[in-house]
Amino acid sequence: MADTISFARGAPSLDIVDVDGLREAARQAFDADPAGTTAYGTAVGYVPLREWIAERHGVGPEQVLVTNGSMQADAFLFQTLVNPGDLVLVEAPTYDRTLLNLRGRGADVRPIPLQTDGIDLDALEAALDGRTAPALAHVIPNFQNPAGYTLSAEKRTRLLALAAEHDFVIFEDDPYIAIRFEGESLPTMLEQDRSGKVVYASSFSKTVCPGIRVGYLVGPQAVIDQIRVLATNTYISPNMVAQSIVNQFCRSGRLERSIETVKEALRARRDAVVAALERELPEARFSPPQGGYFMWVELPEEVDVAELERASKERGVVFVPGTDFLVEGGRNALRLAYSGVTPEQIDEGITRLAEAVRTLTPSATT
Amino acid sequence: MADTISFARGAPSLDIVDVDGLREAARQAFDADPAGTTAYGTAVGYVPLREWIAERHGVGPEQVLVTNGSMQADAFLFQTLVNPGDLVLVEAPTYDRTLLNLRGRGADVRPIPLQTDGIDLDALEAALDGRTAPALAHVIPNFQNPAGYTLSAEKRTRLLALAAEHDFVIFEDDPYIAIRFEGESLPTMLEQDRSGKVVYASSFSKTVCPGIRVGYLVGPQAVIDQIRVLATNTYISPNMVAQSIVNQFCRSGRLERSIETVKEALRARRDAVVAALERELPEARFSPPQGGYFMWVELPEEVDVAELERASKERGVVFVPGTDFLVEGGRNALRLAYSGVTPEQIDEGITRLAEAVRTLTPSATT
Repeated sequence: MADTISFARGAPSLDIVDVDGLREAARQAFDADPAGTTAYGTAVGYVPLREWIAERHGVGPEQVLVTNGSMQADAFLFQTLVNPGDLVLVEAPTYDRTLLNLRGRGADVRPIPLQTDGIDLDALEAALDGRTAPALAHVIPNFQNPAGYTLSAEKRTRLLALAAEHDFVIFEDDPYIAIRFEGESLPTMLEQDRSGKVVYASSFSKTVCPGIRVGYLVGPQAVIDQIRVLATNTYISPNMVAQSIVNQFCRSGRLERSIETVKEALRARRDAVVAALERELPEARFSPPQGGYFMWVELPEEVDVAELERASKERGVVFVPGTDFLVEGGRNALRLAYSGVTPEQIDEGITRLAEAVRTLTPSATT
Repeated sequence: MADTISFARGAPSLDIVDVDGLREAARQAFDADPAGTTAYGTAVGYVPLREWIAERHGVGPEQVLVTNGSMQADAFLFQTLVNPGDLVLVEAPTYDRTLLNLRGRGADVRPIPLQTDGIDLDALEAALDGRTAPALAHVIPNFQNPAGYTLSAEKRTRLLALAAEHDFVIFEDDPYIAIRFEGESLPTMLEQDRSGKVVYASSFSKTVCPGIRVGYLVGPQAVIDQIRVLATNTYISPNMVAQSIVNQFCRSGRLERSIETVKEALRARRDAVVAALERELPEARFSPPQGGYFMWVELPEEVDVAELERASKERGVVFVPGTDFLVEGGRNALRLAYSGVTPEQIDEGITRLAEAVRTLTPSATT
């Protein structure tokens, strides 16, 4: 069998990681601040990086907590704000690990349909029945995982108003924001928040590299203070060596260059996915993303994605079935991650995928 | 006021951290394995480091999980093995964060007195009342935190037999093992375990540096598998950059050299503490440790350690009161951490501490 082509994992290929820049940033970290880089530090993170992040988001450092990757940030936030039985609103589809972790907390997870311009706010408002306010609403506003859709500016404003009116926290989970390769950037809900209702998470996994495991939270100081105590008790402090390397990477201008490299590559990969799908699978429905790693593809209803997964695997193509991202539904949908594959691999991979689809829908090819 | 001299924090001073070696190990990490160092990796940790640790402990890699510091390893283990109401045996005194985290899990924490040769096994056996087996017994066998005492070889054997007979897990929490500067090394309980009852934790915080945040667990494969799932859901993977740096540091012989540096410095610091206490505070009782960072000091009963803490702080000396390490008691005891202070600072610090004691016990000086 030919080498497997993976559309499964949301991770960059090595060619778009600035390894030389990281090596140099590591050298600078140990040179510039040997004490701060090698000592325990504190649970809020490496102080100069915390300050850099605060400045980027126009907040005070006391509103920022830097963590071992943004998944760890999510875990801390859920431990702090979500108790068993609490109502939590999520997008449908949404990131599978978020669903898993919220269920692990015993939350009452209510999926709200996702539209191409973001979460359906009429459906969200209907779910606010007035009896119980949700503990939080989880939203991935830019180039959503798994759909690739982006929350519109109008919906951001309206969601903020709903959170203020109904007194719930918006968890703005925004790891892909910097990876916009097309269209205009939209303001974050964090920067428009006048009611202290937004907790924002992002990470350097998509702009520096995933193995560095540096993420962060920005939010109301009271929430950050609570999480600081939890972080201290969990691990004393996050990784100072990694955060000091990221700090050097950010402050030397390498971050901006790395983002340009990533954006250029991902735009070409997105284009390759779109072109190959239009050529090989004209029956597929999708909305091309303006950034990020992922695209959601819906196939004709008679395609069962579990069967397609098997048939594709036999042909050396893997992806994550749509059902993984939904409490129910998604049986004819899949997530294509194009972050880790070259345009050539994409072309070949979609060709194989289309062959697999045709084995399941022979009539469609006549 | 003179500069504060801190006997409070169990952390090395910068002069005994091999910063040059770390910088070089970082360069090698990015050169030798750029893909493995920068990618997500898996929840078990950076594979070559996992293998190195497994070999060190004479186990298979499937019995090892590398974490973001050993506190995170503790947290995972407690989440896996300790449920609310579970009986957990701990040493008295013991590490304050362990007490805090076990109480946070709602455990029924039973303190067992610590003797200069380790936990009192008669008292431990009496606590095994036959009705409920403990979920685990937490033991810091070498140069215990906070006492500096070491569990004797005889007691290690007997504790293993008790665990097998009464079916409980020994959590062998062993971050200081490599820092023995005097006397013979004792076999770990892990290596003598024939019943699959030991889960072992250690870390590179004391041998490489704390800011690198790399710790690990070794245990029965079933336990490690459970924790692997928990780790995946918590943070996908631990820090690959940091673990790849540690891997290079270990495999290049730098680790052994670093340990020699640390041991030599800590022996001199321990000697300075002992000499200064004998000179300045002959009424203090203590047992000089053969390794590690800490020494437990008991003062005459009329000394209230909370008052001593205030009086010392006024004189520019800080330490952690004994009461922090005990569910009850320790009112005339304190922990001196000598890892972060030079012999000169120790001499001056103990002189100031003795002055503070004399303000509380004026009769003793007449």
